[in-house]
Amino acid sequence: MMQAIRWEGGALHLLDQRRLPESQIWVRLERWPEVAQAISDMVVRGAPAIAIAAAYGMALAVRDDESRTAAHQGLLAARPTAVNLRWALDRLAPIADELIEAEAIAIHHEDLQVCRDLGRHGAPLLTGGVLTICNTGALATGGHGTALGMVRSAIAAGRDIHLYALETRPYLQGARLTVTECIADDIPCTLLADGMAGALMALNAVQAVVVGCDRVAMNGDTVNKIGTYGLAVLAKHHGIPFYVAMPTSTLDQSVAAGDDIPIEVRPDDELRRLGGVAIAPPDALVWNPAFDLTPAEMITGWVTENGMWSPDAEPTLDASNRNR
Amino acid sequence: MMQAIRWEGGALHLLDQRRLPESQIWVRLERWPEVAQAISDMVVRGAPAIAIAAAYGMALAVRDDESRTAAHQGLLAARPTAVNLRWALDRLAPIADELIEAEAIAIHHEDLQVCRDLGRHGAPLLTGGVLTICNTGALATGGHGTALGMVRSAIAAGRDIHLYALETRPYLQGARLTVTECIADDIPCTLLADGMAGALMALNAVQAVVVGCDRVAMNGDTVNKIGTYGLAVLAKHHGIPFYVAMPTSTLDQSVAAGDDIPIEVRPDDELRRLGGVAIAPPDALVWNPAFDLTPAEMITGWVTENGMWSPDAEPTLDASNRNR
Repeated sequence: MMQAIRWEGGALHLLDQRRLPESQIWVRLERWPEVAQAISDMVVRGAPAIAIAAAYGMALAVRDDESRTAAHQGLLAARPTAVNLRWALDRLAPIADELIEAEAIAIHHEDLQVCRDLGRHGAPLLTGGVLTICNTGALATGGHGTALGMVRSAIAAGRDIHLYALETRPYLQGARLTVTECIADDIPCTLLADGMAGALMALNAVQAVVVGCDRVAMNGDTVNKIGTYGLAVLAKHHGIPFYVAMPTSTLDQSVAAGDDIPIEVRPDDELRRLGGVAIAPPDALVWNPAFDLTPAEMITGWVTENGMWSPDAEPTLDASNRNR
Repeated sequence: MMQAIRWEGGALHLLDQRRLPESQIWVRLERWPEVAQAISDMVVRGAPAIAIAAAYGMALAVRDDESRTAAHQGLLAARPTAVNLRWALDRLAPIADELIEAEAIAIHHEDLQVCRDLGRHGAPLLTGGVLTICNTGALATGGHGTALGMVRSAIAAGRDIHLYALETRPYLQGARLTVTECIADDIPCTLLADGMAGALMALNAVQAVVVGCDRVAMNGDTVNKIGTYGLAVLAKHHGIPFYVAMPTSTLDQSVAAGDDIPIEVRPDDELRRLGGVAIAPPDALVWNPAFDLTPAEMITGWVTENGMWSPDAEPTLDASNRNR
């Protein structure tokens, strides 16, 4: 299984996901502002992986005797949408300096177990053609993955699955990361462009759509990679179940409905240039939101490490779940 | 206005659309097999432009004393989906050798007038935000354009329009061609990735969707650039009118329903590589259909050079319309 994050020799090592699949380059980060920059620049991405990286960033800040408040604010500001980042920093806030590194390592290890548990709960939902967007695999998490983890668990359980991976413009997480993971781990997978999802469904090739999430409101409104909402509309039109793989750390108890979740808008040049080549005029006006909002009523179910969640079941989510 | 096709000095000159917007390179073609190859390789693309190029290809064949049957078959096979190619070759078939060049020039000039007429009929349908896919402008036609021609005509008529251009993976006709045309011709335009269409509609930013077409069956089923079907589903979900700009040369009287229209599947590497850069593993399995089918019932209206067409009005389309 591929790996995106290593904590070694008192430094955070991140696999530079912008360079995949052409190059496997690890960057070594020794100070927390470098970690914040790496999150902002998408060296590391995926809501759970961002949280893990930020936790190690805080460990670096403490070791360097830097202001914890400054590091907390700086890391939190690195990307605005994924709530896991805040969740990890909040979890570290009450921890004594000398225990921060151990707690960051615990967050990292726990995330792998969360993904395995989530995958086990979600596996029975999947069979046949499964369509997904973005990368929600080992590279987006502490390992195993969320939506891709469900696929991984389903295959391990002997279920007959073929994954359809949308390339996921503009950052191409599907083409560059998901397909790379699938090939590495023998997950049957076909790559297609984002605009091909409808045609694929019309061929009856898709039995389920499963996606990750960056923040879920208490009413179930789900913010995830741009394109997710369109997939949900297409799935509904075709009568295909639409599942969200949601570690409980992605549920934002402070947000009642999705309209209150900030949607990050990324730089224009992500759409204008690719690999050093101009694919649009340099003066093109661009709209480049990184995420969109899928209303709860379009979602068949949310799969967590504790089993299925639904907005109605909200009161049963106790604090111990929230803090694991 | 940009231009894609010139007939000059006894040769066909094509603007190499694969190189835009970085480079404006014209290729000079002197023999019909070069024209077939250029169509196949997408040096020229867009259903009406392909037809014009093929007509000039036949003029080259006749001038070179080549077999007209061979040229007809070779040009026809260059791309399988757009019916305009067949329409143009069929129109030339009964023409005497010495009149072929003039007829090819007529096809070229008439296409510009068809687009202007189509634009005039379609302009009143558009106001506010207009979403489109692919390139349906001057570069896809003899000039003016079909769907983009409607936008052009609406703006010329003083209507307040903002165009939203989907980048249109994998060939990026929207980013590379439509945005380039819009900037050249002062059409207000914002570029977005294909997966962003749903989020844009959810913001109420889209008052109409308008697309071109590569072949329309007699029942109104419409084959167009991959992604069109998904847009139609999204438009229906949001209650947004969905128009097809359809020169009558794109109506295939030999096809009753869309299921009988062949859908071209393009090479895998169009999804794996971009501008010399690997954006997916070289051994990734790929599904790369160039077109999809939008069922007639999802389409609000078809705009032709003669006004609105609808499947119900089919018997009124007489032969003189078909042959113009």
